[in-house]
Amino acid sequence: MKQRYFSLLLALLLPLLAAAQPAPAITRINPTNWWVGMKNPGLQLLVYGPQAGTLTYTITYPGVKLVKTNTVENPNYAFLDLTIAATAKPGRVQIIGKKGSQTITQTWELKARDNTPKAQGVTAADFIYLAMPDRFANGDASNDKFADMRDPNLDRANPFFRHGGDLQGAAQRLGYLKDLGVTAVWFTPLIENNQPLTNEGGTMRASYHGYGFTDQYNIDKRFGGNEAYKSYVQQAHAAGLKVVQDAVYNHVGNTHWILQDLPMKSWLHQWPTYTNTSYRYHPITDPHAAQIDRKISLDGWFVPFLPDLNQGNSYVANYLIENAIWVVENFGIDAWRIDTYMYNDQPFMNRCNAALLAEYPRLHIFGESMVNNVVDQAYYTRNNISFPFKSNQPGTIDFVLEDAMLAALRETGTPAATGWDGGAQHVYQTLAQDAVYQDPTKLVTLLDNHDKNRFLSEVGDDLDKYKIGMTWLLTTRGIPSMYYGTEILMKNFKDPTDAEVRRDFPGGWAGDKEDKFTAAGRSGRENEAFDFVRKLATYRRDHKVLHGGKLMQYLPENGLYAYFRYDAAATVMVVTNSTDKPAALPTARFAERMSGFAKARNVLTGETLASLATLQLPAKTALVLELLK
Amino acid sequence: MKQRYFSLLLALLLPLLAAAQPAPAITRINPTNWWVGMKNPGLQLLVYGPQAGTLTYTITYPGVKLVKTNTVENPNYAFLDLTIAATAKPGRVQIIGKKGSQTITQTWELKARDNTPKAQGVTAADFIYLAMPDRFANGDASNDKFADMRDPNLDRANPFFRHGGDLQGAAQRLGYLKDLGVTAVWFTPLIENNQPLTNEGGTMRASYHGYGFTDQYNIDKRFGGNEAYKSYVQQAHAAGLKVVQDAVYNHVGNTHWILQDLPMKSWLHQWPTYTNTSYRYHPITDPHAAQIDRKISLDGWFVPFLPDLNQGNSYVANYLIENAIWVVENFGIDAWRIDTYMYNDQPFMNRCNAALLAEYPRLHIFGESMVNNVVDQAYYTRNNISFPFKSNQPGTIDFVLEDAMLAALRETGTPAATGWDGGAQHVYQTLAQDAVYQDPTKLVTLLDNHDKNRFLSEVGDDLDKYKIGMTWLLTTRGIPSMYYGTEILMKNFKDPTDAEVRRDFPGGWAGDKEDKFTAAGRSGRENEAFDFVRKLATYRRDHKVLHGGKLMQYLPENGLYAYFRYDAAATVMVVTNSTDKPAALPTARFAERMSGFAKARNVLTGETLASLATLQLPAKTALVLELLK
Repeated sequence: MKQRYFSLLLALLLPLLAAAQPAPAITRINPTNWWVGMKNPGLQLLVYGPQAGTLTYTITYPGVKLVKTNTVENPNYAFLDLTIAATAKPGRVQIIGKKGSQTITQTWELKARDNTPKAQGVTAADFIYLAMPDRFANGDASNDKFADMRDPNLDRANPFFRHGGDLQGAAQRLGYLKDLGVTAVWFTPLIENNQPLTNEGGTMRASYHGYGFTDQYNIDKRFGGNEAYKSYVQQAHAAGLKVVQDAVYNHVGNTHWILQDLPMKSWLHQWPTYTNTSYRYHPITDPHAAQIDRKISLDGWFVPFLPDLNQGNSYVANYLIENAIWVVENFGIDAWRIDTYMYNDQPFMNRCNAALLAEYPRLHIFGESMVNNVVDQAYYTRNNISFPFKSNQPGTIDFVLEDAMLAALRETGTPAATGWDGGAQHVYQTLAQDAVYQDPTKLVTLLDNHDKNRFLSEVGDDLDKYKIGMTWLLTTRGIPSMYYGTEILMKNFKDPTDAEVRRDFPGGWAGDKEDKFTAAGRSGRENEAFDFVRKLATYRRDHKVLHGGKLMQYLPENGLYAYFRYDAAATVMVVTNSTDKPAALPTARFAERMSGFAKARNVLTGETLASLATLQLPAKTALVLELLK
Repeated sequence: MKQRYFSLLLALLLPLLAAAQPAPAITRINPTNWWVGMKNPGLQLLVYGPQAGTLTYTITYPGVKLVKTNTVENPNYAFLDLTIAATAKPGRVQIIGKKGSQTITQTWELKARDNTPKAQGVTAADFIYLAMPDRFANGDASNDKFADMRDPNLDRANPFFRHGGDLQGAAQRLGYLKDLGVTAVWFTPLIENNQPLTNEGGTMRASYHGYGFTDQYNIDKRFGGNEAYKSYVQQAHAAGLKVVQDAVYNHVGNTHWILQDLPMKSWLHQWPTYTNTSYRYHPITDPHAAQIDRKISLDGWFVPFLPDLNQGNSYVANYLIENAIWVVENFGIDAWRIDTYMYNDQPFMNRCNAALLAEYPRLHIFGESMVNNVVDQAYYTRNNISFPFKSNQPGTIDFVLEDAMLAALRETGTPAATGWDGGAQHVYQTLAQDAVYQDPTKLVTLLDNHDKNRFLSEVGDDLDKYKIGMTWLLTTRGIPSMYYGTEILMKNFKDPTDAEVRRDFPGGWAGDKEDKFTAAGRSGRENEAFDFVRKLATYRRDHKVLHGGKLMQYLPENGLYAYFRYDAAATVMVVTNSTDKPAALPTARFAERMSGFAKARNVLTGETLASLATLQLPAKTALVLELLK
C-alpha cells in the first residue's frame, strides 16, 4: 500500500521537478583548448553548465573520438573522455549535447602546436631568480586593481594589499636580471587568485600571495592576464632566460569557481570537522606510522581558506594534470616548481610528473618539501633508498642544504666554526650524504625564499657571511636559486608577518625615490653585494665546469673548507675560512685535484696566484680559484 | 770485473751468514687448534718460529691436505693453506717442516666439536648488560696482578691501574643480572692486553681498557685466562644468559707478539710519518670524497699505541677471521660486538661477517659506528640504500637513537619539550627514518656506554628523566643494552678522563664497604631505580610483544609521545609526558591500535585502568600500559 502511494506522489511531482530545473547549458569547458600532435592521445574534458551532466554528448570531428561520457553526483558536470588521433587537424570542434528536443552546441578549439621554445628545463647550468610578481616591478598601472575582483584594493603602504607589480614590469627588468647572471626566473604563482582579503583568526590572508587559485586557466589580470604572460615568456626566452612556473596541486582558493558548485563531495578531502594538516612529513615516510597521522599530513587542509584537493579522485587528477600540460604548451614555460609537494598524494604526483615528462622530456620539476633531513628529502625525488613508494620527481628543493649553510654561517666567526660538527662541517656533512639521491645535481639550492627570513638577516647583516654563503650557493653542486633583492641586500625577518620579507623592489614602481635596479641607485655596500653576485653568477654562467663538473670536497679542518669542481678541461677550487682569524692553508693535502696546476686566477679579484703551495685566507672569506697549468 | 769481485765476496760470506741464522723452529701455530666438521674446509695456519718460513712442510693426516705453503718477507713465518675434509677425524696432526737434514715436528690438534650452546645470537628478546671486566667484580684475588706482565700494577685507588675484576667475580654475579632481567652480558674485551701503562703526551694509556690485544688466542690471565672464560660462558648459559664478545679487528696493541717481528711490512697500515685516523666517517660514504680523506679515516691509526691492521692483506684477513671463528667455537659465545667498525676495511668486514654467519647462522653481529645521522649508520648494516658498497652486517649499535633520546631528555621539563622539533620529537623523528634499514629491530640501542658520560649525568641526575629514558630503551624497537651500574644510579662525566665513568661496581670486591648487588646495600633512591629497571626488564623478558611485536608510533603532540608494540596476542601502549606539567591525553586518536580494548594494566604500578578514554599523565613521566579487552 505504502509503495503505491509513493509511486503516485512521484508521478505527480516529477513534471514539477523537471520544470524547476534550468535549461541545460554549457558555460565552461576545461581545458579551454587543446593541441593536435600531443604524445598522449587521451584527454578528459570537464564540461560545466546547468544540467550539463544530463546531456547526451556527441562529437563528429575527424580524428576526435568521444570514448565515454562520465556523469557524477552533481548534474551540472560531465567529464568527456576523448581520444585525439595523430591524424587530427587543428580546428574548431563542435561539442554537441542533447536532451530531448534540446541541442546545446559548444565550440572548443584544437590548435596547432607552435615551435617557440618551451620546456627547456633548468639544469645546474642555470641560476634561478625567485620573485613575487606583485612586489617586483609595476609596468602597467592600468591593471593594478579591478573593482570587480574580490580583493579590489591597492595600497603599497599596506603589506597585505596588492602593490601592483606585474608581468610587464618584470619583462622590463629582464635585462637587469640577465646582466646579473640570472638565467631563469621563477615567480610565485601568477594564476588567478580572485580571493578576498580576509582576516582569519587574526591572520591576514592576502590574495597577492598567489597560492589560492580560482581558475587555473587564467593568469591573474592584475599581472596582465594570459596574453601578458605569453609575451613575458617570449621576451624572457628572447633574452636567453628561462621561465619557471609555480604549480599548486594540493589545494585551491576557497572561491575557486569549482568550489561554488562541487562536481562531487569527494573532489575535496572532506573531514567531519575542519582538520588542518599537521605540516608533518615524518608520518609519510615512517614505517611505524599510524594511518591517522599519515592522513592528517596528506589530507588535512593547508589552511582553512585553501580547500584540499582529493587527488585520489581521478577526475581531480585528470583536471590538474591536463592543466599542467596546457600551461607548458600554452605559455612555453621551462620548468615547474611544485608547491607543498609532500602534502600531495604521492602516486598522483608520480602520475602528473610522468605525464608532463612524457610530453616534455627536458622539463625540470622540483617540489617544495621543507624537511630537516636527507632521508625525508630523498623520498620526494628520484632516490637510492628502497622506500615502499618510489618518487619519479626529477628534482626537489634542497632545504636540508639550506639549513646546513645557514647553520654554518651562524657559527662563522665564532668558536663553533672549528667545533667537531660546527661551521662548514654542516655543509660538508650534508653534501656527504648525497648518496641518497640518484642525481643530487638536480636539486635546487637556496639560502632563503619568500617564506623565510631573508638571508642577510639570517646571517646577522654580515656581508662577509653573505659572501661565503653566496659563494657556496653559486659554486657547489645543484641548481642555485636566489630570492629577489638578495643582490641589493634586502633584509628582514618573517615574523610577525611574512610581509617584511616581501617588500617591493625599490625602483620597480614609477616614482620610487630609489631605483636599485641601477648602480647609481644602490649604496656602496649594495653595489659591493650586487657586484659580488654578478661576478660569481656570470663566471658560473660562462664556465661549464660549474655546471657539469664533478664535485670533490675535503674534510674541513680548523674551520677551513675546500672543495673542487672539475672536469677534463678545467678545475675550480673553492676555499672558505669560517674563522675570525686569517689562515694559511698548505695545499699538499689536495694533490688529487691540484696536481699539475702551478698557479691560479682569483675569480673574484682577477689576481693571479703565482704559487699554490700555501693559500692565504683572510678571516671570514671565500676564495674562488681557477687553477692554471 | 766488479761483478766477479761481488760474486767472490758473496761466496765467502754466505757460510758465515748461514751460520749466523738460528736453527729453524716452530714456536707458535695460529689458530692454536681447529675442529673437524666445520662448514668451511679451508684454513690458513700461521706458523711462526726462527726461520719457520724456510722449511718445507708436509702433513700426513687423513683428511687434512696441505694445499700450499706461502712464504712472506719475514723468513720466520710460513702460512700453510690447508683443507680439512668432512671425513677428517679429531686427533693430533703432525706438522713437519724440513730443511736439509733438519726436521721440525710440531703437533697441532683437530678437536671434535662439542654440543654446548653457542652462537645463539641476541635478538630483540634480549636485554644486554655491558660491563668492564676489570671494574665489575673480583672473584679471584690471586689473578689480580702478575709481575711478569708489562703492567704489573694493581691499585683500585688509581683509575688507570688494574682493579682486579675478573670472570670468576662476574660469574658470581650472574644471579644478580638474571634477577635484574638481563639476558645477555657483554664485557669489554677479555683478550690478553699485555700492554704497559704509558703516558702518551699527557694521556694515560691503561691496559685495563682492553682494546689493545697482544695475543688473540689468550684470555687475559688477570681475568682468569681461557679456562675461566669457558667456565664463565658455561655458567652464563646454564643461567639462561647469553654472552656477547667484544671484537677488535681494526688494530692491536703495539706489544702484540706479531708486532715484535712483523711477517711483512704490509701487515700494518704504514705511513711515511705517523698518521692518526681523523675519526671521521663522512669521507667513507661521501660520493664527493677525496681519496686521501677516505684513506686517513680508514687507514690512519686509532691512537699511536694501537697499530692499524691492514685487512686488505689476505694473511691479516685470514688471521682475524679464523680467530673469530675459533673464539666462537672454543668459548661458545653468542654474539659479537665489533669495535670501531667503521675504521675497518669494509670488504674485509663483509668477508669476516659472512665467514662467521656461514658457520653460525644465528650469531648476531653489531658494530660500533658512532655517527650522527641515519644514512651513515645504515651504511654499516644491511640497509635499503643503494650505496656502492653494501654491508652485510646483521646489526649495528644505534648511536643515532641514543643521541635522540638524550636530546629529548635534556629538553624534558623545559619549554623545548613542546618545540616543533623538540623533546620526544627527537626520538620520534629518528625512528621515523627506519626505512633506511632492512631490519631496524636488529639494532642495539643504548643510553650510554664506557666511552660516554653516564646516562644519569647526561640527564642532570634527574630520576624522572632516567625513568623516561629507560622506558624508551626497554619498550621501543631494537635490542636494548645498558651500561653496568646504571641500575644503581652510577653517574659521572667522562672528562677529564674516562675513568670516572668506569668506576668499580660497589660490592664487587671483598671488603667493599657498600654492596650494591644487594637491596640492603642500596639507598632508597638506588632501589627505586633498580626496581624500575627490574620491573620493566623482566616484563620485557616475559612478554613476546616487546620482542617481536610491531612498533606503531604517533606524532608527538604537546610534548606527549605515544607508541604501541603489538602482535596478534597483545598490545602494549607507552606514553611519555616530556613536559613539566600534568596532562590529560584523550585517546580517540589512537583508535587504530586501541580499538577493542576497554581497560589496561599499568605495568609499572600493577594498577588497573578501568577506562581508557583519557589518560592522566603526571609531569615528566612514562606510562606503560598492557591493554586489556
